[in-house]
Amino acid sequence: MGKGGMSVDDDHGEEQNMAAWLVAINTLKIQPFNLPPLGPHDVRVRMKAVGICGSDVHYLKTLRCAHFVVEEPMVIGHECAGIIEEVGSEVKALVPGDRVAIEPGISCWRCDHCKQGRYNLCPDMKFFATPPVHGSLANQIVHPADLCFKLPDNVSLEEGAMCEPLSVGVHACRRAEIGPETKVLIMGAGPIGLVTMLAARAFGAPRIVIVDVDDHRLSVAKSLGADDIVKVSTNSQACIFDSLVLEFER
Amino acid sequence: MGKGGMSVDDDHGEEQNMAAWLVAINTLKIQPFNLPPLGPHDVRVRMKAVGICGSDVHYLKTLRCAHFVVEEPMVIGHECAGIIEEVGSEVKALVPGDRVAIEPGISCWRCDHCKQGRYNLCPDMKFFATPPVHGSLANQIVHPADLCFKLPDNVSLEEGAMCEPLSVGVHACRRAEIGPETKVLIMGAGPIGLVTMLAARAFGAPRIVIVDVDDHRLSVAKSLGADDIVKVSTNSQACIFDSLVLEFER
Amino acid sequence: MGKGGMSVDDDHGEEQNMAAWLVAINTLKIQPFNLPPLGPHDVRVRMKAVGICGSDVHYLKTLRCAHFVVEEPMVIGHECAGIIEEVGSEVKALVPGDRVAIEPGISCWRCDHCKQGRYNLCPDMKFFATPPVHGSLANQIVHPADLCFKLPDNVSLEEGAMCEPLSVGVHACRRAEIGPETKVLIMGAGPIGLVTMLAARAFGAPRIVIVDVDDHRLSVAKSLGADDIVKVSTNSQACIFDSLVLEFER
Amino acid sequence: MGKGGMSVDDDHGEEQNMAAWLVAINTLKIQPFNLPPLGPHDVRVRMKAVGICGSDVHYLKTLRCAHFVVEEPMVIGHECAGIIEEVGSEVKALVPGDRVAIEPGISCWRCDHCKQGRYNLCPDMKFFATPPVHGSLANQIVHPADLCFKLPDNVSLEEGAMCEPLSVGVHACRRAEIGPETKVLIMGAGPIGLVTMLAARAFGAPRIVIVDVDDHRLSVAKSLGADDIVKVSTNSQACIFDSLVLEFER
Repeated sequence: MGKGGMSVDDDHGEEQNMAAWLVAINTLKIQPFNLPPLGPHDVRVRMKAVGICGSDVHYLKTLRCAHFVVEEPMVIGHECAGIIEEVGSEVKALVPGDRVAIEPGISCWRCDHCKQGRYNLCPDMKFFATPPVHGSLANQIVHPADLCFKLPDNVSLEEGAMCEPLSVGVHACRRAEIGPETKVLIMGAGPIGLVTMLAARAFGAPRIVIVDVDDHRLSVAKSLGADDIVKVSTNSQACIFDSLVLEFER
Repeated sequence: MGKGGMSVDDDHGEEQNMAAWLVAINTLKIQPFNLPPLGPHDVRVRMKAVGICGSDVHYLKTLRCAHFVVEEPMVIGHECAGIIEEVGSEVKALVPGDRVAIEPGISCWRCDHCKQGRYNLCPDMKFFATPPVHGSLANQIVHPADLCFKLPDNVSLEEGAMCEPLSVGVHACRRAEIGPETKVLIMGAGPIGLVTMLAARAFGAPRIVIVDVDDHRLSVAKSLGADDIVKVSTNSQACIFDSLVLEFER
Repeated sequence: MGKGGMSVDDDHGEEQNMAAWLVAINTLKIQPFNLPPLGPHDVRVRMKAVGICGSDVHYLKTLRCAHFVVEEPMVIGHECAGIIEEVGSEVKALVPGDRVAIEPGISCWRCDHCKQGRYNLCPDMKFFATPPVHGSLANQIVHPADLCFKLPDNVSLEEGAMCEPLSVGVHACRRAEIGPETKVLIMGAGPIGLVTMLAARAFGAPRIVIVDVDDHRLSVAKSLGADDIVKVSTNSQACIFDSLVLEFER
Repeated sequence: MGKGGMSVDDDHGEEQNMAAWLVAINTLKIQPFNLPPLGPHDVRVRMKAVGICGSDVHYLKTLRCAHFVVEEPMVIGHECAGIIEEVGSEVKALVPGDRVAIEPGISCWRCDHCKQGRYNLCPDMKFFATPPVHGSLANQIVHPADLCFKLPDNVSLEEGAMCEPLSVGVHACRRAEIGPETKVLIMGAGPIGLVTMLAARAFGAPRIVIVDVDDHRLSVAKSLGADDIVKVSTNSQACIFDSLVLEFER
């Protein structure tokens, strides 16, 4: 969350807001996290569930992920859900007590991508726990209200925290125009592969085959409903395609 | 099937081909049905299951359906599946013994609709049991091979006969672009309403509400998986919309 | 422009910024217009050309347009172009001296329309000269840089001011999917009808017919390239359609 | 035209129908061409203009084009227009005397491509002058009426013969979704490049650059309206891209 900062002060009454700061390789510290003032369109959210993404692990182990480098202490975490504590003066759709899933990226709304409805591609996105923007593994955060989505009663806060990775699978299925006439092949049975599988099923895909090099991941995929799984060797490229052709001939 | 005709002759060996002829209001007769010669792209199919459509009932009771009028004896039936008996000289995709669902309309392939991929709209369509074209409630028929679709082993011939009405539901869902983000309201729980409901579910629709004036039809819809049903009175238009609004506010 | 206000102060050096204030029915006054501070993503623009839209005329004559009511003095004008005088600290795409056409509406970027790329539909749009938002018929305005579009050298500032109405025609042609295979009928030869005609020609429309009740407007349409014009009487509905059918049978 | 054949007989009265037969490499002979009987949906057309396509030249010089091989004498020609002489019993849209452009391919209407509105991709297409199908460089041909398109009075028969190559350019522009917001680069200024350029202009393309290795072809492109031309050397790959980048930076 780009608006906060490290602080020993507490600007929200008696409670000191704490967060998980990445301060060095393999070193997290729970330290005070100063919240920014609540803007008219912002909400303050008490975090209840925060997933640990592969990117968080990368930052923890190497202070890097893709081309991003952690150069000063940063709060980690971006897959999150919580309960609204306070709403800004112009916020009408949420009230304190609402359980919300949180969209972790604040886009610029000035570039062509943003204006054309593809704001996920915004090059100036401020995304939780992507340096120099702080993340959401904190007691509380301040975030734009329009990026907080009220959860139905039958969705838990832990499930709410998984909305962010799930949305990657939903987006993949939208782009691939998955439907009841589409057979789906997923390369990789990691978390994103699995949420894509679940999304593809929800889009009506009649047959989903998932590929990985790891037996455990494949067994999880199978237990979550893959129609078939394909184990591939890490050192034999040729066999992948043979296996896949066999799969799709069935 | 446009190519046949009433006959006492038998041009396929010792077997006399018989069909259900509509000869007068409420009068069906089982009479010989002369098959046309098998063209190079045709197949001869032994009928195994033929549904009775509402249109067949209309013709039986009134000799009319929509603007079509039965002016001379006509074989009825168009929702059908069977087993291939013989294939024309150019037919490569089917062999005798194949179980097939049958698409009942032969379009002209000369009009703009046909050329643009919307051949279902062809104004010169020759459709089973639409006068003056004979239907398929017969022991055998001759039909273009490209309108016969091989059934998977796990689909029965009775289910195959239902492919024609089901395709109406599938087409409706394609046109409405149903997906996991689409709530669906179906007006009418007759057979076409029900197959549309099943298709919408296959397309991923998360919530399907179906409306009818008939309790029995609604209970069938419910048992087939409607998320909710709405009974409407035949003499109170106003209440329909109130009920529907209530449904969709949930 | 929502950020300004009436003022006798001058916060940009010795020059007093002046604007055309609508203060009562049929009463415009040239009065000081206090500019807001320049935000990091804003630019200050010296106005060089401002069109007078039908909506400006409505406000002048009645203090109303559609459901908007002018309840306190308001600067009018929204079809405009000018020259950049100053840029905010984060503005990279524009420099002082750039000639720009100005998009007159600032949308909220929080609603679904904005997020889906249809920000023109934003219900919270702040649009020049739409009460209570001030317009741009002023010596200078402050506006977001991303809503200022640099003009090519061969486009005049007067033409730049017409980009706003022209964009209505372009949008209409995009939505109607105009192309070289589309015949176009335009109902009304007012300014928007004319820019739509020009846009349709640019989209390749091979035949454009325009309809109006006014001979002068139709003659302008003809001189701007309408393939045909249709005069309709204000008191004879029936003849419209006869004429149009004749037009399209040609 | 697939239905004809070499013959000394004349089945249309006193006139002997003649055609240009490719009988060996670089050897064309004008010989009798026996027309098939006129089917109910066919027309007989007196050819008035037939273009010589690159494929005709390939066949003439090598008896081959792409993977097609001329194994017995074949009438060449497929870009053609003519005048209707006789219509089949079911033909309603054309009458003798009509001037028509001719679509040269008869597709199967049984494959998925045909049924989905992409019949141009039909693998069983019978296309004029594509062995073993005869072409249209003949005094008369017999062809399906639905593949003959009546020409407006202001389009000559020679222009009608060019409809076939022009349709390639139109199809390219449809697939590329050319419009007034699309800059177009065309690689190659041969006949198909030129008709694509003309089509792109008709679709509203504001800037069209065309590339070739041949000065003469480029000068023709320029005279037909290319906004810019790029000469590339046949032995220097690198310079192509530099030139193109320069072009598009303008």
